[in-house]
Amino acid sequence: MNRKLRISVIGPSQAARETLEAAEQVGAEIAARGAVLLCGGLGGVMEAAARGAQRAGGLTVGILPGTDCAEANPCIDLPLATGLGEARNLVIAHSAQAVIAVGGAYGTLSEIAFALRNRVPVIGLGTWQLRAPDGTQAPVLAAATPAEAVQKAFQAAEGNAA
Amino acid sequence: MNRKLRISVIGPSQAARETLEAAEQVGAEIAARGAVLLCGGLGGVMEAAARGAQRAGGLTVGILPGTDCAEANPCIDLPLATGLGEARNLVIAHSAQAVIAVGGAYGTLSEIAFALRNRVPVIGLGTWQLRAPDGTQAPVLAAATPAEAVQKAFQAAEGNAA
Amino acid sequence: MNRKLRISVIGPSQAARETLEAAEQVGAEIAARGAVLLCGGLGGVMEAAARGAQRAGGLTVGILPGTDCAEANPCIDLPLATGLGEARNLVIAHSAQAVIAVGGAYGTLSEIAFALRNRVPVIGLGTWQLRAPDGTQAPVLAAATPAEAVQKAFQAAEGNAA
Amino acid sequence: MNRKLRISVIGPSQAARETLEAAEQVGAEIAARGAVLLCGGLGGVMEAAARGAQRAGGLTVGILPGTDCAEANPCIDLPLATGLGEARNLVIAHSAQAVIAVGGAYGTLSEIAFALRNRVPVIGLGTWQLRAPDGTQAPVLAAATPAEAVQKAFQAAEGNAA
Repeated sequence: MNRKLRISVIGPSQAARETLEAAEQVGAEIAARGAVLLCGGLGGVMEAAARGAQRAGGLTVGILPGTDCAEANPCIDLPLATGLGEARNLVIAHSAQAVIAVGGAYGTLSEIAFALRNRVPVIGLGTWQLRAPDGTQAPVLAAATPAEAVQKAFQAAEGNAA
Repeated sequence: MNRKLRISVIGPSQAARETLEAAEQVGAEIAARGAVLLCGGLGGVMEAAARGAQRAGGLTVGILPGTDCAEANPCIDLPLATGLGEARNLVIAHSAQAVIAVGGAYGTLSEIAFALRNRVPVIGLGTWQLRAPDGTQAPVLAAATPAEAVQKAFQAAEGNAA
Repeated sequence: MNRKLRISVIGPSQAARETLEAAEQVGAEIAARGAVLLCGGLGGVMEAAARGAQRAGGLTVGILPGTDCAEANPCIDLPLATGLGEARNLVIAHSAQAVIAVGGAYGTLSEIAFALRNRVPVIGLGTWQLRAPDGTQAPVLAAATPAEAVQKAFQAAEGNAA
Repeated sequence: MNRKLRISVIGPSQAARETLEAAEQVGAEIAARGAVLLCGGLGGVMEAAARGAQRAGGLTVGILPGTDCAEANPCIDLPLATGLGEARNLVIAHSAQAVIAVGGAYGTLSEIAFALRNRVPVIGLGTWQLRAPDGTQAPVLAAATPAEAVQKAFQAAEGNAA
């Protein structure tokens, strides 16, 4: 058994150009290091990350909310149609050894929550800042650049392989 | 058709005494005003809120993660066994006309995210503070007391009936 | 703790008149005996069963596939919006102490499967006949009339309370 | 965009030796023809099919019920931890262009139901026989051998690509 690492990239379906460019670089770095890219399979950050990974020769998996694989963006190699609506966010959060959040809307927030709950490391690149009721910050590891985000994700993932 | 309002109370399964007392008062107020209480059906804040509502004569619904209704706390009148794990959090977030978060762990955070995504108003009583990537705060309405939380929840729910 | 029994009525959203009349009688009997009616909350058999139960003074719960409680039929007292698509069928199958299938399309078939898997008794009133690979019939208890179906459901449910 | 076909193999986690051998041949044929194998990721038929596909050089995807990818069988290349319990059966049924049922317990029955509901062709190799309320048989295409099952699956899948 010699499985590749799996890294999820999460982020909104609509985002500014610099966010999309960052997502694409994140995807490219993930593939260059030999990991599988998981994402939500739709547009915006999901598509940009998949484009970067696919161009770099990596495998891209899109975990879709609907029942039709045809709704996957064209950079997805392996579309999975869950038919579970936003509950597909749990699959994205649970299946990776690390999660990188690029930007963030409410769906992204739910994925961060499920990843943290399931002890999957979360790296943030311009994403939510979360202060718990006791005043502490949630352990989202901040990164300043796509390269740093992927570097931190692989570092964190190594202690989390399966 | 003359449906009662539905208010979800969310919060961690383990909490400090004052958090549990607040949850119980929240539950009591919800029932006193004639709404149905929805919660996750387990212990901690979920049980305290259900206890308050049940003692005040309200109907309490517990939406459970497992497949066995016997895991519901004793203050649940109507247990529902989803068998969906943490995806049951979506049901709690989507089914109410308003959500009140009392305290908060990562599961609570996921419920806040899904409620906001689905435009269900969220009231916070000592819960997460969420700063979006653009620097704005997520629209969790802060309340200082259980009574104020329920007051704000009913106010918000009135524009959200179904 | 003195919970009411919960009986799920499952069946297609489009059905012949006699099937709908049977579902309505099943719903009425369930309420007359004091149990809560669970169903999928939409039209056809779901609405007919809820109408029967509501007119007989029972509580009707509709477990919906979408995120909007407004899609519930008008005979649902307590709508729950799962946002989980057809995965809501698991909630219907797992949450009751017995399930009554009136007619049946593929969604009904999935609910019968999940109920049997979770050892929830299933009563069939003109529903699927299921022959396992080893040639045995699946334990769906056949009933000839609505009254017999409800009679068998309560009998089976008594050994299954929670 | 040049996606590989995806074929799901479904069947029980415990099965007789000849059933497991059939599943392994089915997996081998699927991989030999260049498709991705999807399955539930656990033991029995799921592991046998994955073993056949992996040995034949194919990609094997395991869609797991729990939150821990470590529960995947050793023949899974890409484990996905849904955390959704038996609702992961929907993902298996919806994500393939054809489904092959080898043997069958209640979980398999639920997957057949969801595939048929979503118009995904189902091939049966010693699986459930399903008679609808109107007396017709459900359109599960019977196959007598593993090779015939895969042949029929690819034929059916060709009209169903995405």
